[in-house]
Amino acid sequence: MTTSVGIDIGGTKILGIALDPDDPTSLLAEKRVPTPPTTPGLLAAVVEVVQALTQEVGSVGIGIAGLVDRGGVLRVSPNLSHLRGVDLVSELRRQLGDVAITVDNDGTVAAWGEHCAGAARGHPDVVVLTLGTGVGGGFVVDGQVVRGAHGFAAEVGHMVVDPNGPPCPCGRVGCWERYASGHGLARLARDLADAGRLPRARELAGGDALQVKGEHVAAAAREGDDASRELLDTYAGWVALGVGNLITLLDCGMVVISGGVVELGELLFDPLQAKVPAHIMAAADHAPVPVVPAQLGSKAGAIGAAMLGAAAR
Amino acid sequence: MTTSVGIDIGGTKILGIALDPDDPTSLLAEKRVPTPPTTPGLLAAVVEVVQALTQEVGSVGIGIAGLVDRGGVLRVSPNLSHLRGVDLVSELRRQLGDVAITVDNDGTVAAWGEHCAGAARGHPDVVVLTLGTGVGGGFVVDGQVVRGAHGFAAEVGHMVVDPNGPPCPCGRVGCWERYASGHGLARLARDLADAGRLPRARELAGGDALQVKGEHVAAAAREGDDASRELLDTYAGWVALGVGNLITLLDCGMVVISGGVVELGELLFDPLQAKVPAHIMAAADHAPVPVVPAQLGSKAGAIGAAMLGAAAR
Repeated sequence: MTTSVGIDIGGTKILGIALDPDDPTSLLAEKRVPTPPTTPGLLAAVVEVVQALTQEVGSVGIGIAGLVDRGGVLRVSPNLSHLRGVDLVSELRRQLGDVAITVDNDGTVAAWGEHCAGAARGHPDVVVLTLGTGVGGGFVVDGQVVRGAHGFAAEVGHMVVDPNGPPCPCGRVGCWERYASGHGLARLARDLADAGRLPRARELAGGDALQVKGEHVAAAAREGDDASRELLDTYAGWVALGVGNLITLLDCGMVVISGGVVELGELLFDPLQAKVPAHIMAAADHAPVPVVPAQLGSKAGAIGAAMLGAAAR
Repeated sequence: MTTSVGIDIGGTKILGIALDPDDPTSLLAEKRVPTPPTTPGLLAAVVEVVQALTQEVGSVGIGIAGLVDRGGVLRVSPNLSHLRGVDLVSELRRQLGDVAITVDNDGTVAAWGEHCAGAARGHPDVVVLTLGTGVGGGFVVDGQVVRGAHGFAAEVGHMVVDPNGPPCPCGRVGCWERYASGHGLARLARDLADAGRLPRARELAGGDALQVKGEHVAAAAREGDDASRELLDTYAGWVALGVGNLITLLDCGMVVISGGVVELGELLFDPLQAKVPAHIMAAADHAPVPVVPAQLGSKAGAIGAAMLGAAAR
């Protein structure tokens, strides 16, 4: 049996998994190493992880944060700027020999992972979102992963939802990520706490309004604090606005949400599911679209990468 | 040779064309009839058009405004409300016999037409927009038309781009259609004329601010009227905002624009092409995405419908 390896290269760690592509749910091996700070170090670490995972590599799929073009060259990488312009496919082929190698955006591989082995199994049309520091995403349309003409598809966090909104590091204003990321939730919370309108969450954050984060708001809301519940409702409304736009555009049959905010549980998913229909055109004629938490957690990217690599053989 | 028939059912007319699916650019026959106001009348008219076009029907593809589910049932139809809930495929099969019949949204078939035989030939990833009374659209991803889980994909006009924007007939606010449609241009023009700030266009409209339309603004702009040029620039900015969102989401290699506003020519396309990069994330790392006028005009829908019908055989 040849084995498919999937590698998720993050800003702080590299996660590798090995699986049998005929059964993406059964992981054969797993390895995690810190991300080296240089390109040669990083390439060596990837090779080391691959070789530690299996002696019979059939394919290697890689997921990485940033814009990866369809030739496997990293064009933009916010976390690993030394990799900008590096042709990962060619570099790794030189060291790994003649195996199929694919490199895709982290949102794309995570979406494919949830489609193959997670929450979206059996759904041919899916949007998978990661609401973390930023907002990432990936699309599956008619059972196929969407890469786009240049490999840059599904940059959902930079859909503009408010031309009068706050500035975004990308240079524009009102990007959805400003509202819907975990960072966006913390911003909402800080602003409210700073105005003295989120006393319990502020107390839980040690009294400093600037330290109020989603976890303090969640803890206060679970105690029954109304101001915290209202804030989470407002946050869910911003998430629902973008989710509604994506359903209106792609008519997906399911939306899967991953990232830190999934820990909010029903504090997020209940208001979100309730609000999404108001953000879809002709919701009454639309079968309800389930908005569900991801199932694969931090392994979604590596699993999806392995499956995309296997498909490229 | 069997022939593929494409039918575009509009609010006022039905256009049918016959073509050889191996060469979608060579039209064999064409027929146009008024749209009857009742469902039985409309079905009879479609059958009559098909039979007038060819004696050897291989397939029939239909495009129609509204939300068409993947079984060919019209769920929502703004222009032909009597058709709501009608199973067009079954009704037509009863009268046409055993031929392949597909029914899709008008934006979807027009996109497929431009992809097969028009401005987007050879481009596997394309967004086609119709900026008319409303804003319609269709997506081609990796050479395949995007229908979505329920057949409702690409309702681009109802992507919300401003949560504080004007009300939309769909029940929400700030839908892109409010700004980017021909209607949106006329609204911008009326508001400015009513404030006395569009004197030349108002003059060309006979002096009544409420009668100022895109064509008057265009005529004034061609004479060199600065206020009219600025207004078209503002309008192009709203179009660019949504086009930028679609490129950010789908990473299409080309955007094709059809509809009445295409007559604005370089008054629209020059500022639009100039503004789009500012609405794309990481534009500097992005190959320029051409934004071009459609080539098939009012026949795009019928041609695309014929080709989708042929593919379903």
